[in-house]
Amino acid sequence: MRLDVITIFPEYLEPLNVSLVGKARARGQLDVRVHDLRDWTHDRHNTVDDSPYGGGPGMVMKPEPWGEALDAVIESGADDARPTLVVPTPSGVPFTQQLAVELSERPWLVFTPARYEGIDRRVMAEYGERFDVREVSIGDYVLAGGEAPVLVMVEAIARLLPGVLGNAESHRDDSFAPGAMADLLEGPVYTKPPEWRGHGIPDVLISGHHGKIARWRRDEAFRRTTANRPDLIERADPASFDKKDREILAALGWAELPDGRFGRPGQAVEQ
Amino acid sequence: MRLDVITIFPEYLEPLNVSLVGKARARGQLDVRVHDLRDWTHDRHNTVDDSPYGGGPGMVMKPEPWGEALDAVIESGADDARPTLVVPTPSGVPFTQQLAVELSERPWLVFTPARYEGIDRRVMAEYGERFDVREVSIGDYVLAGGEAPVLVMVEAIARLLPGVLGNAESHRDDSFAPGAMADLLEGPVYTKPPEWRGHGIPDVLISGHHGKIARWRRDEAFRRTTANRPDLIERADPASFDKKDREILAALGWAELPDGRFGRPGQAVEQ
Repeated sequence: MRLDVITIFPEYLEPLNVSLVGKARARGQLDVRVHDLRDWTHDRHNTVDDSPYGGGPGMVMKPEPWGEALDAVIESGADDARPTLVVPTPSGVPFTQQLAVELSERPWLVFTPARYEGIDRRVMAEYGERFDVREVSIGDYVLAGGEAPVLVMVEAIARLLPGVLGNAESHRDDSFAPGAMADLLEGPVYTKPPEWRGHGIPDVLISGHHGKIARWRRDEAFRRTTANRPDLIERADPASFDKKDREILAALGWAELPDGRFGRPGQAVEQ
Repeated sequence: MRLDVITIFPEYLEPLNVSLVGKARARGQLDVRVHDLRDWTHDRHNTVDDSPYGGGPGMVMKPEPWGEALDAVIESGADDARPTLVVPTPSGVPFTQQLAVELSERPWLVFTPARYEGIDRRVMAEYGERFDVREVSIGDYVLAGGEAPVLVMVEAIARLLPGVLGNAESHRDDSFAPGAMADLLEGPVYTKPPEWRGHGIPDVLISGHHGKIARWRRDEAFRRTTANRPDLIERADPASFDKKDREILAALGWAELPDGRFGRPGQAVEQ
């Protein structure tokens, strides 16, 4: 997979040399190219921004450097290669594990992290006519620029590529990954020593009884999910809950609603 | 504000020297200290992980190095200084702008980004008895470690500190920030030149009519939000919608529901 990043802070992308992504690059599984947007400016101040039409605070990134940079990057590919453009912006669609999977199947992604109030809209309009342009938000918070979101997205995408993760199995029980724990957060984990600062480990984990361990983990996943992400339980298909799941939900104060879904404690239950 | 980060990949935190956070450090507004967890291991392989009790794929981070590292970091503070521990984990509560604001008011944050399947649960139990421990997730996707989330959270928090952003006004219209655009995504932005590759700019933006510009921006914010984040409209307090807001929602196919909220096009409307 080829990944290009166009930014005014190339040094922010240094972590792409480290750990999982760095190793995938070293093995040739990822071809990562970071470009300095200012290389496509032509004034002596290397200007990339100007004041917004219509007034208001902040600055807007000018269309010309982005257009020249994107043209140069796109032209550097094979004749028929068509990158997907990924534009980090708080106004985008949510970046989810599902979208990470979809993007991991593309041969070539070009990321355009912006600063200030964002990029002149006409850049997305222009390239959207010829390419798949995805405006994506990694979460409901305000950042100073799109570089940190690019690090997040590249890591989420890269670990899904064949051969990048050492142990194929370690995808399996991840929170948000498809599988037994789909729609539930992972519960607590423990390793040696069996006693640490007066804290032991749950007996069931050394029982050797695989069924009981699986059930305990699922109960703990329900405890964690109801506490931290009640929205995931509310959204879940109740057909995926077995008898024991319903027992733990009831014990946690959740009630089955008339439509079969589960409602959180204290919420009005329509009769 | 003091920020400590304990990690097995200190080099991943290099972006904390760049841009907004780097400048805040240089000005003395932020005291950032990055620590290598392996400094608190005592075997010649600097082991930080072991297999999980109860079996299963992946490795769990051992409690001893984390305990020693946290003790050392906490003891380095003033006698009565009590840090807030921020633990990035997909099993945590969602990191939101509201949580960024809350954490930006703390004098001292200690981040504990994990790798593998996470940190032995007893570490959170032990420090949770004496400190405010926040387990936080930046979004519904799977990463290789907590370092990228730390970069995201530190940036979101740092830009809220007094004097860190150059222009105090530039907080105002941010998506997810309180203000006129609360609960709406920002619409498109434009800057010079007025014509670029055959694309002009909307006439209203050069009309000089502030009321019309504000209304156009709000309409565009509704267009963007209904397209990319219908959940924000569904969740919004309908009392915040004025007559023109209701007109644009109707034009976009949204219907006012019996309870006063708005339902997206194509959704069943209960009568």
